[in-house]
Amino acid sequence: MSHPSLVIVGSIGIDHIETPKLKKENLLGGSVSYACAAASFFSPPGMVGVVGEDFPDKFMELYHSFDVDLQGLQRAEGQTFSWTGVYEENMDNRRTLETVLGVFESFEPTLPDAYLSAPFVFLGNMHPGLQLHVLSQIESPKFVLADTMDLWINITRSELLDVIRKVNMLTLNESEARLLTDSHNLLDAAKALLKMGPEFVLIKKGEHGSMLFSETGMFIQPAFPVENVEDPTGAGDTFAGALMGYLTRTNACDEAEIRRAMVHGSVVASFGVQAFSLEALEALTTPHIQKRVDGLLSMMHVDLPCPHTVAT
Amino acid sequence: MSHPSLVIVGSIGIDHIETPKLKKENLLGGSVSYACAAASFFSPPGMVGVVGEDFPDKFMELYHSFDVDLQGLQRAEGQTFSWTGVYEENMDNRRTLETVLGVFESFEPTLPDAYLSAPFVFLGNMHPGLQLHVLSQIESPKFVLADTMDLWINITRSELLDVIRKVNMLTLNESEARLLTDSHNLLDAAKALLKMGPEFVLIKKGEHGSMLFSETGMFIQPAFPVENVEDPTGAGDTFAGALMGYLTRTNACDEAEIRRAMVHGSVVASFGVQAFSLEALEALTTPHIQKRVDGLLSMMHVDLPCPHTVAT
Repeated sequence: MSHPSLVIVGSIGIDHIETPKLKKENLLGGSVSYACAAASFFSPPGMVGVVGEDFPDKFMELYHSFDVDLQGLQRAEGQTFSWTGVYEENMDNRRTLETVLGVFESFEPTLPDAYLSAPFVFLGNMHPGLQLHVLSQIESPKFVLADTMDLWINITRSELLDVIRKVNMLTLNESEARLLTDSHNLLDAAKALLKMGPEFVLIKKGEHGSMLFSETGMFIQPAFPVENVEDPTGAGDTFAGALMGYLTRTNACDEAEIRRAMVHGSVVASFGVQAFSLEALEALTTPHIQKRVDGLLSMMHVDLPCPHTVAT
Repeated sequence: MSHPSLVIVGSIGIDHIETPKLKKENLLGGSVSYACAAASFFSPPGMVGVVGEDFPDKFMELYHSFDVDLQGLQRAEGQTFSWTGVYEENMDNRRTLETVLGVFESFEPTLPDAYLSAPFVFLGNMHPGLQLHVLSQIESPKFVLADTMDLWINITRSELLDVIRKVNMLTLNESEARLLTDSHNLLDAAKALLKMGPEFVLIKKGEHGSMLFSETGMFIQPAFPVENVEDPTGAGDTFAGALMGYLTRTNACDEAEIRRAMVHGSVVASFGVQAFSLEALEALTTPHIQKRVDGLLSMMHVDLPCPHTVAT
């Protein structure tokens, strides 16, 4: 029985998505699907999630093809969580048409024994009470990342603050960072978030990349620029999943390693948005990732004007 | 008589600006004011511009204090160009309330002899016909940067295309790049702009930084993040002016040097927006700039996971 070093919990969904170019139904979605697939390029993750009786076998096979450990995947009576959304012109805005919670509504997982000693944990975006329930079962995690969203900031702030106190890194997007801290300026918001407990705050800015904040500094990670964005759904989960997979593979969580993990996360997410659901990740290989990582590093690189010389 | 190695042409304006916090009148503004002040930290520029009879002596003294060469500055009968604008909440949008062209309307400068052999030229945002008129007088420039705006794209496209063909680098903002090329995607837009002639295209993205495109690659420059933006007017001109000043000082225009110039441009612009008009630049010193340059480089830096070893 495998003991995955990275455990990821989140939603598993059936998505129906319309973009300005295309409309696709019955896609595999949900934060844990994207995050596990992305993490698998670096370290095979253990998935904690729930599906209903309607969940297609082909999606189970897809998880297997990514080498995802499914000991933590439950099948429950009822309908799988489902999301229907529309991206408006230029993909700049998205509207949710329908959310069906289904079996996700009463999800309260008991983790398999094989997951309890996992050093790396990614608490995907879901009710903070559920994040706490999962986290409390892991014996002594080395590095925990939590994601969240505006809904939980608005309706379950106190439990969310409890999550934030207990994790090593919090990730959220720009507007959520402002909402949670009531600061318009992003630097002020990041400082306020660091005061809430985590060592690292990772603010996602979509096509403009992301920013990492810690007590000692700041890192600005540009997104890998792509020409053909087909479907941005799950980009943040893909980014964070790859980041956590990378840290798990290197078994480190210092800032230098997190910066490298962000480069890899940005690259894997750049592939992810070039197709619907996990389609682009299915075709992805390590050499493809390495090529874009090299490209992105060169796009970020500044040669210093003259080498630093050591005074003697 | 000094022969400045960098010549900058553009508007000189009296600005009246309202932000959500403050309203200030009779400020020194205009693209060439910001660009020359910013360039002066690296190389004293020669200014080509026009003012009216109403132009205050204190602004002339301010130019002198930045060590700007004023042989190319004309004083004409009439009113100085003036701009009145309001920044809406969060500084995200600005509205022009009034523009008075004044003496700028009939500006058609004959450059002083001392400017004709300048190797570096920055054609600030103004009518492309006027940009061509200035450029045609410079004998054999080594590196020419041109800025433009949506107005000229809409009403003088053919003359603007003539400018673009003749310069080494074009700078414009994201929406202008899309407008000029009719491409929503920024990479497509940049490719189309490179086909129009310049070796380099520099797309400005405001608080999200800028991107440099050339035949061989791409560079993503984050903006230096600041907490207190007081007045973003002139940020693009400050950025470009500092960039050109830096290139002039190093007397080089290869891509590695341009990347370093962009880092410096981003830093000088970050100071500029922290006060109205040139107030922050008046107080600025080289050690302040160097400190933020070091900071920005560290925010962009990724250590490679292991040193490249040469196979033997």
